[in-house]
Amino acid sequence: MAKELKDLTKRAENYSQWYNDLVVKADLAEQSAVRGCMVIKPYGYAIWEKMQRCLDDMFKATGVQNAYFPLLIPKSFLSREAEHVEGFAKECAVVTHHRLMNDPNGKGVVVDPEARLEEELIIRPTSETIIWNTYRNWINSYRDLPLLCNQWCNVMRWEMRTRLFLRTAEFLWQEGHTAHATSEEAQAEAIQMLNVYADFAERYMALPVVKGVKTANERFAGAIETYTIEAMMQDGKALQSGTSHFLGQNFAKAFDVKFINQENQLEYVWATSWGVSTRLMGALIMTHSDDNGLVLPPHLAPIQVVIVPIYKNNDQLADIDAVVNPVVDRLRNLGISVKYDNADNKRPGFKFADYELKGVPVRLVLGPRDIENGTVEVMRRDTLEKHSAPLEGIEEYVKNLLEAIQQNIYTKALNHRESMTYKVDTWDEFKEQIEKGGFLLAHWDGTTETEEKIKEETKATIRCIPLDAEEEEGKCIYTGKPSKRRVIFARNY
Amino acid sequence: MAKELKDLTKRAENYSQWYNDLVVKADLAEQSAVRGCMVIKPYGYAIWEKMQRCLDDMFKATGVQNAYFPLLIPKSFLSREAEHVEGFAKECAVVTHHRLMNDPNGKGVVVDPEARLEEELIIRPTSETIIWNTYRNWINSYRDLPLLCNQWCNVMRWEMRTRLFLRTAEFLWQEGHTAHATSEEAQAEAIQMLNVYADFAERYMALPVVKGVKTANERFAGAIETYTIEAMMQDGKALQSGTSHFLGQNFAKAFDVKFINQENQLEYVWATSWGVSTRLMGALIMTHSDDNGLVLPPHLAPIQVVIVPIYKNNDQLADIDAVVNPVVDRLRNLGISVKYDNADNKRPGFKFADYELKGVPVRLVLGPRDIENGTVEVMRRDTLEKHSAPLEGIEEYVKNLLEAIQQNIYTKALNHRESMTYKVDTWDEFKEQIEKGGFLLAHWDGTTETEEKIKEETKATIRCIPLDAEEEEGKCIYTGKPSKRRVIFARNY
Repeated sequence: MAKELKDLTKRAENYSQWYNDLVVKADLAEQSAVRGCMVIKPYGYAIWEKMQRCLDDMFKATGVQNAYFPLLIPKSFLSREAEHVEGFAKECAVVTHHRLMNDPNGKGVVVDPEARLEEELIIRPTSETIIWNTYRNWINSYRDLPLLCNQWCNVMRWEMRTRLFLRTAEFLWQEGHTAHATSEEAQAEAIQMLNVYADFAERYMALPVVKGVKTANERFAGAIETYTIEAMMQDGKALQSGTSHFLGQNFAKAFDVKFINQENQLEYVWATSWGVSTRLMGALIMTHSDDNGLVLPPHLAPIQVVIVPIYKNNDQLADIDAVVNPVVDRLRNLGISVKYDNADNKRPGFKFADYELKGVPVRLVLGPRDIENGTVEVMRRDTLEKHSAPLEGIEEYVKNLLEAIQQNIYTKALNHRESMTYKVDTWDEFKEQIEKGGFLLAHWDGTTETEEKIKEETKATIRCIPLDAEEEEGKCIYTGKPSKRRVIFARNY
Repeated sequence: MAKELKDLTKRAENYSQWYNDLVVKADLAEQSAVRGCMVIKPYGYAIWEKMQRCLDDMFKATGVQNAYFPLLIPKSFLSREAEHVEGFAKECAVVTHHRLMNDPNGKGVVVDPEARLEEELIIRPTSETIIWNTYRNWINSYRDLPLLCNQWCNVMRWEMRTRLFLRTAEFLWQEGHTAHATSEEAQAEAIQMLNVYADFAERYMALPVVKGVKTANERFAGAIETYTIEAMMQDGKALQSGTSHFLGQNFAKAFDVKFINQENQLEYVWATSWGVSTRLMGALIMTHSDDNGLVLPPHLAPIQVVIVPIYKNNDQLADIDAVVNPVVDRLRNLGISVKYDNADNKRPGFKFADYELKGVPVRLVLGPRDIENGTVEVMRRDTLEKHSAPLEGIEEYVKNLLEAIQQNIYTKALNHRESMTYKVDTWDEFKEQIEKGGFLLAHWDGTTETEEKIKEETKATIRCIPLDAEEEEGKCIYTGKPSKRRVIFARNY
């Protein structure tokens, strides 16, 4: 067994440590020399690239175009929107100078005091301000609308406690920013992008999510309404996986973006913004993986199939190569990414453990007896089950198996979520259940005050009001005041 | 004629202004509210995305993997490599604080003096330092080599005089950073990536380039050898379009990156780095475009074919739609990106001028008479020639035409460069010719002193010593000292 695998903490021992270990040992990411900033290693980045490609195609299918806006934002821009500044201006990286000079008192370099900027610049924590300042010049008439832009970029928020992928000072994300002629159209856009995110999470990440709306307290700073997709991790905690905001006319007013409508009247533009980030990597890792390492959904795995030969000498290897090489070609022709690992500097046992750690969905093993019998040993990573299959037609077999694995891990995650989702009707029940984790469906009186008290006492927050919540008369779990529907409480990442 | 086009400065009047006008009017990019930082607009970004995709595939075909390293670099890292700090530490964005606070004396926000960083952080001007600091932990033995990483990211250099795409404070680029066990292997890698860049420039951008090596004076700060591809713009000035550096063991020594070689000895690792940036957009625009607007190479054009219908009423449009829609499908099946612009809110003349301005390589126009005759009017953007072609088989015709245009604009650019490349043997000739622009092939005595004097007197720099320069006895154009080969002098962007 590979050393890396032996050192992996078990989930039951310490779920949090298991996650940290796994991210590092599976070569996904690591801490950098800069506080709170991570290095995304090639294997982790390959998964992120696959996510990007899928999402980008989905965005473009709705008419969105990519663009690029500046990294730096003038400090004063943040103050334009009253709520936005409260949310984002506090913990951020501030550029104050534009030059270094040789240290007159020694070696090395120091900041040149003469190169102080007139106005400080902030590294973007999100780009509503700089983008709406730009949109002012792009939008004149209803004919310029809708304007649907997205950018893939880095952003920075000076987080105090960071965790790889889940919460880092710098992270990679996409941020969509759209401008519309009517409130209805902007709201429909916000919902459409929420649906794109949910669809992506479920179809590609095999991640079941609850679509809902945030309470006022949890809203994006500057939004009228924030929609969210919430996922449940294996420890029963929630992970907010993507948000889509209806911004009303808040940023249009802050940056004076008006258009001439079809009735020839000047009106402020309506806005949305929406984003997902490298945090999705954290959700992906935590949802499916096990004590042997990563479990990757076939639709996002950089390597979908690995083939390992078992041989005692070069003649045996040559025989296996002759059988495997055409299989590799045929798998690739089916669009399946496959690695044939016939390197002779590692033992098969080491390779097995390593590919399990890396979450490769399907492993094929061939030895001399398989060649004789026309068989191959198939191992599926999700269940770790092994069995023998005929070599003849193995490509179609593998293709179907990959789809089966994709479906199976989705179902497994969905069953897990359902098994840890509870209707809770008394405060005692609530306090008891929240300690065990899970989603608590409970009535709430609709006030921020109650929400904050519950959070103080239990560390549970309202993850969302599900979009499909049924109307139901009830009493607030905390105050007993009337409520019309249940909301989802949970502890969260 | 569209207003935008009428306002476009002519190249002969003011080449520099023509370029600036074109970038803005063709919706490629614009200045932002932040000094020296540009906004890349959707049409410009779509071209950049195509470039990225092609280059990324070419890198990966050589075994390179993508990764991501932090935006911010500790100030002290820059001082580790003596030459590197001279080249990059001077004009850069310095992060000194991590928090803003409400202004106690009024509205808005100010820097919180208590949130001063212990060590200032620099926004990366290039990432050798942070990457080699990371590689120290990734490399132990020759088995870990070669290590071939690339990242697509933003970088920042505080330029005083900026021009859209050509020189901006923030720009997008890729930077490859490779680590090798031997000097020979690293040098071969640097040359291999230079060839990838040249190949990309010629095959996709239709941009002929000279491959060469930089003089000591023009080398990347910290490199042993800098290789470059140099292109000539229409005004005869040179544009450095990509560089690839052999870094020797300089960064390995600065960051203490050693490996155990096959002889079981500890040795410093050998390095390369190589990059191209959004500057390539400037090269693309300046090389092929004309007084009517952009001319885009078909291999990088976001829209390769536009189809415009000419009609007087809805019946006529319906007839044209019925003919065009299947043509659109068949073109797309051939992998050609096509836009059928049957919007009725703009006149055909406006559309024609707009697509010319945007550089769409092929325009097809159909009116009622074409439908009757089974013909279509074909306009190619590179020559602006129009002719009638049979509708039958138009897809294959267009496909071939796109390749012909790609070839034609490459040949045109190559002929232009050759017509403006001169062998110059006297200093008087040199001074006269440099005023007219072009590449001057001249002998040089090999000293930095002479190079700098020539630059002072003529603003010409040595663009490169061409890799294929013939050995030839000669005398330095400036000092008369002996020289063994000609180098390329030019004024440059």
